[in-house]
Amino acid sequence: MDHVTFVPTVDQLNYTFGGAEPVLRIKPGTVLTLWTEDAYGGRITSRDDKASVALDTEDLNPQTGPFWIEGAEPGDTLAVHLVDLTPARSWGASTLIPFFGGLTSVPASPTLQEPLPERTYIYEYDRAADTVGFSAQGSNFELSLPANPMLGTVGVAPARREVRSSLVPDAFGGNMDTPEMRIGATCYLRVNVEGALFSLGDGHYRQGEGESCGTAVEGAMHVTAIVDLIKGGGPEWPRLESDTHLMCIGSGRPLEEAWRASQVEMIGWLGDLYGLDRLDAYQLLTQISQVPIANVVDTNYSAVTKIDKQLLPPSPAYGGIHAELRSAAKSLGTISY
Amino acid sequence: MDHVTFVPTVDQLNYTFGGAEPVLRIKPGTVLTLWTEDAYGGRITSRDDKASVALDTEDLNPQTGPFWIEGAEPGDTLAVHLVDLTPARSWGASTLIPFFGGLTSVPASPTLQEPLPERTYIYEYDRAADTVGFSAQGSNFELSLPANPMLGTVGVAPARREVRSSLVPDAFGGNMDTPEMRIGATCYLRVNVEGALFSLGDGHYRQGEGESCGTAVEGAMHVTAIVDLIKGGGPEWPRLESDTHLMCIGSGRPLEEAWRASQVEMIGWLGDLYGLDRLDAYQLLTQISQVPIANVVDTNYSAVTKIDKQLLPPSPAYGGIHAELRSAAKSLGTISY
Amino acid sequence: MDHVTFVPTVDQLNYTFGGAEPVLRIKPGTVLTLWTEDAYGGRITSRDDKASVALDTEDLNPQTGPFWIEGAEPGDTLAVHLVDLTPARSWGASTLIPFFGGLTSVPASPTLQEPLPERTYIYEYDRAADTVGFSAQGSNFELSLPANPMLGTVGVAPARREVRSSLVPDAFGGNMDTPEMRIGATCYLRVNVEGALFSLGDGHYRQGEGESCGTAVEGAMHVTAIVDLIKGGGPEWPRLESDTHLMCIGSGRPLEEAWRASQVEMIGWLGDLYGLDRLDAYQLLTQISQVPIANVVDTNYSAVTKIDKQLLPPSPAYGGIHAELRSAAKSLGTISY
Amino acid sequence: MDHVTFVPTVDQLNYTFGGAEPVLRIKPGTVLTLWTEDAYGGRITSRDDKASVALDTEDLNPQTGPFWIEGAEPGDTLAVHLVDLTPARSWGASTLIPFFGGLTSVPASPTLQEPLPERTYIYEYDRAADTVGFSAQGSNFELSLPANPMLGTVGVAPARREVRSSLVPDAFGGNMDTPEMRIGATCYLRVNVEGALFSLGDGHYRQGEGESCGTAVEGAMHVTAIVDLIKGGGPEWPRLESDTHLMCIGSGRPLEEAWRASQVEMIGWLGDLYGLDRLDAYQLLTQISQVPIANVVDTNYSAVTKIDKQLLPPSPAYGGIHAELRSAAKSLGTISY
Repeated sequence: MDHVTFVPTVDQLNYTFGGAEPVLRIKPGTVLTLWTEDAYGGRITSRDDKASVALDTEDLNPQTGPFWIEGAEPGDTLAVHLVDLTPARSWGASTLIPFFGGLTSVPASPTLQEPLPERTYIYEYDRAADTVGFSAQGSNFELSLPANPMLGTVGVAPARREVRSSLVPDAFGGNMDTPEMRIGATCYLRVNVEGALFSLGDGHYRQGEGESCGTAVEGAMHVTAIVDLIKGGGPEWPRLESDTHLMCIGSGRPLEEAWRASQVEMIGWLGDLYGLDRLDAYQLLTQISQVPIANVVDTNYSAVTKIDKQLLPPSPAYGGIHAELRSAAKSLGTISY
Repeated sequence: MDHVTFVPTVDQLNYTFGGAEPVLRIKPGTVLTLWTEDAYGGRITSRDDKASVALDTEDLNPQTGPFWIEGAEPGDTLAVHLVDLTPARSWGASTLIPFFGGLTSVPASPTLQEPLPERTYIYEYDRAADTVGFSAQGSNFELSLPANPMLGTVGVAPARREVRSSLVPDAFGGNMDTPEMRIGATCYLRVNVEGALFSLGDGHYRQGEGESCGTAVEGAMHVTAIVDLIKGGGPEWPRLESDTHLMCIGSGRPLEEAWRASQVEMIGWLGDLYGLDRLDAYQLLTQISQVPIANVVDTNYSAVTKIDKQLLPPSPAYGGIHAELRSAAKSLGTISY
Repeated sequence: MDHVTFVPTVDQLNYTFGGAEPVLRIKPGTVLTLWTEDAYGGRITSRDDKASVALDTEDLNPQTGPFWIEGAEPGDTLAVHLVDLTPARSWGASTLIPFFGGLTSVPASPTLQEPLPERTYIYEYDRAADTVGFSAQGSNFELSLPANPMLGTVGVAPARREVRSSLVPDAFGGNMDTPEMRIGATCYLRVNVEGALFSLGDGHYRQGEGESCGTAVEGAMHVTAIVDLIKGGGPEWPRLESDTHLMCIGSGRPLEEAWRASQVEMIGWLGDLYGLDRLDAYQLLTQISQVPIANVVDTNYSAVTKIDKQLLPPSPAYGGIHAELRSAAKSLGTISY
Repeated sequence: MDHVTFVPTVDQLNYTFGGAEPVLRIKPGTVLTLWTEDAYGGRITSRDDKASVALDTEDLNPQTGPFWIEGAEPGDTLAVHLVDLTPARSWGASTLIPFFGGLTSVPASPTLQEPLPERTYIYEYDRAADTVGFSAQGSNFELSLPANPMLGTVGVAPARREVRSSLVPDAFGGNMDTPEMRIGATCYLRVNVEGALFSLGDGHYRQGEGESCGTAVEGAMHVTAIVDLIKGGGPEWPRLESDTHLMCIGSGRPLEEAWRASQVEMIGWLGDLYGLDRLDAYQLLTQISQVPIANVVDTNYSAVTKIDKQLLPPSPAYGGIHAELRSAAKSLGTISY
């Protein structure tokens, strides 16, 4: 396996899926060790940094990449296995941003109400305890929460010649903001353009399902991933596989449309794995589906349909590539940055 | 504690929340042992019973109740603790019903497409193994799934003089169809009319999150519940408490509105329990919220906001009534029907 | 034709569709001369009456009725022809109500933002000029607008034993809030219960499409209507006919579902009138449909699909009953109250 | 005034807003005489051309442009005045496309139902009578409808470095599909990138509001437009002005969000023109707004908020540029192609 390390300079960061020149060309099977800047572009460093001032820019949610995957052609399946995610700073930040988030009006659906007050929360990351610390601002309440590093954004260049902001989740992946995108997961994405043009970023030291206020515990991240390619078989919507679960991620508006997309995608997957016709797969899904919402705050909302593998007979997806990648990941030993 | 057993005759079943005469008057703290008919009114008994023929009726989703709770007044909080749910038949049934469910057009949002084909699935309930059996109809696939008995429908009479079909979930509870409504859960509902007029029904031997096709493994159920009353404090939206989690259930359309309702309800609850102001509670929720969807198939969709109690310092809700009810439930010993 | 006059006392007003005893029994073909209170129950009489104080009640949007129509059975079609609408007061009122309206968050879709400031606007009705007067409160701007009297609410008892608040629009009609419900229109409603239990109210001296802030120029109204009955043929959704247009009104959430309901209803109607199959009617509708939104503020939103009769060959709906009712209306001469 | 004629070759057509090299650079105030291909790229020419075969391509909805407007900078306002739209063929075509349109499930919100049958309708354009002819396929019904030429798509390059398919309507304009985009209208668009990169296309010989099935009477069009530039003042959402109306067009999902965007945009415009504060403008809009839906079929839905100028005192928008452009248009005399 090739093992490539890439730490972007500020100028090398990109803010779109599609439309950017590749930073590197890699072979399928390459191990990538990367560094990702936080979604604020590093502009929020203390409780006094208010989003409306610090983030007055179009340069939000910087991505590391894109990487050109040799041999990737439209219709193929890119498999991205997350080997390791390690917080790269000793703190993360979450902000209440005016007219952004799930419990405020937003420009896409405006009201005449005033914005919520701004607040910036700094979460100290305790590496030893592997926790992040919440401090209330209206009272003395403090709380340590287990860290749970994940990536908000993983994606490829979109179809139909489009270039989308890295704030957008859609069929090409992007800013899906699901806590399921964590160590040990393999993400399957349809390749839409030659070379796939894969990027990732938006590290979260921890996030709840829904990302209610619009920003998780955002932080720079060390990322190690193996990027592999399966010829053909590109899914309609992003899929995830962990040791324990199969998952499909739909994105759209309203939220039920994201859910429908993720459900129909899973029905297709169950059909492929178990020879079920669509009605039988629909029926079975009804009784075994889990639906942890990903985000209800981005330009599209994202919903995850999730199935516990233990409920089903073994049937390795994509020829068992997830197990192979897990095992390759283990062979890397401890990753240090 | 009073312990009352009530098994309704067919004529005593009710199909609405509000608008029906109470079947019994009970004191707060009463243990109720009940029987609930399945959502089909018992009209589906074999694979050959097609919904479009068998269910051509307004008598769907029969409820056991309503019960008049003595002393319950508008603004109070009804606490319903589910002591036991035991399948009352040796099989449950799930049906693909024309123009009903999450992955078909529906009368409220019609298209010009033909309906999906009908299918009825009978799930044998293996009491010893505590499983239900799925048999595909388009292939030979068979699967045993763990039973996970729950109630689709728990509610009280609505506000504003309304009478709602038992197919509807809303602020009064009703047909929320969340798998979280299981043994050991305490459901808190705002009382809207004198006596509360509480009913329950719609037993499911198992259901996935979302209830994709619109019908779970529907089955008659033996139910034991303790019904208690807290003066005042009625929540805006139904709340649930288990030994491990706090939950709020919002219902509405589109799905993000159900989500918002459940989130704001939880922000209020966190504020009450921990003295957090609304912005701090919003921030904290962002990092700890779980969002298992309840249903995306009923007249309103339902979303659950769920918090793991272990993440938070102990702070008993409603004066610790859940623990008391748990303990009272244990004192009842094994329930037999 | 029987001609019945009914002016309700305050105690005779009703606040629901379904669930109320009929105030009168009338024969099909009866002319009704009625008086309707405004949606505030007459509690807003000056700019100083703020909604949050004056409307702290469940008694909103009072209806005149219900009327029992002799011979009306489930599945029949009620035809309500609006002969005359005359403002019954010399002023109407519109209010900005906290957390109500189209450009604020609402309890069904809450945010954490503060409510908009309250304002009450009194519009003087100039009977001679037939105008209502708008006066800005933040500046000196004043404007006379043509009066355009209409009824926000026309409906019958719902199906499935339900009782709905008079704030709700749905398949039974109710609070549709479309300016199309004006003098000269005939409204066709499906009868759901014996006697139909028809009511109306919520007079508006003028309203824009959408009813943006949630309240039109609300005012007490003198109403003269002819109520007729067609056996069978009850439409799925309310229909309207004027001398110039055919219209169908769908209600639901999100707004596209209301639109879909109104479109499919019109496709059915075109099919009946012109022998078009559903695909041809869909195609034709695509090129001739008008879609004036009714309201985006009520518990359900309402959309109107509207077709200019001039574009189509003559084909009298319901045996030409609209023309007959128009002609009967003219035979009544000038209505005085 | 410069007067430039541009008829694109097939290779010069573009399929995105943003991301394409300008075909021409023009000065503000230039008269453009253009030709636009139909949305099918000319691939549908008879009833036997089925969309699923003929349109199996990413090259849909070709645009004429983009044009680089000299001096246009981000934040400026582009004013596009439609002088003339003349059908360039003797027929237009509308198609029922599988899984596309308002009354079928679509990939963004999939169901498990079969697609609707395909049909292609050819509408003969009678230039003398200025009508298009509809012929039913399931019966003998035929109908002549007045032609009403319009452009489905008018837009500029998007903000945030995005490139969007020409199938998309959004804040940059694009595929809004409103019949209001007709001769005599001036469209105001915010400039997002240097040069604005303005394109147009998607001629419709006639369309109803909503574009129910997803395709209007699509046809190649001769277009004459004057393109002017106002420094600064770029609106959040596209605005339209005709001799009789002011209009704002919002796009998004669900449909109520498109409506909200258009309403808040109009409130801002009313505020600018009449010195109304936001609450007064909200109130006034409530009583005078018209809301003709544009489309409920594209990747975003579009809604128009429309105000009759006659209801308001004269107050020329943008310094009276619409009247100037109307008058410049008249000075061009009859346009021949």
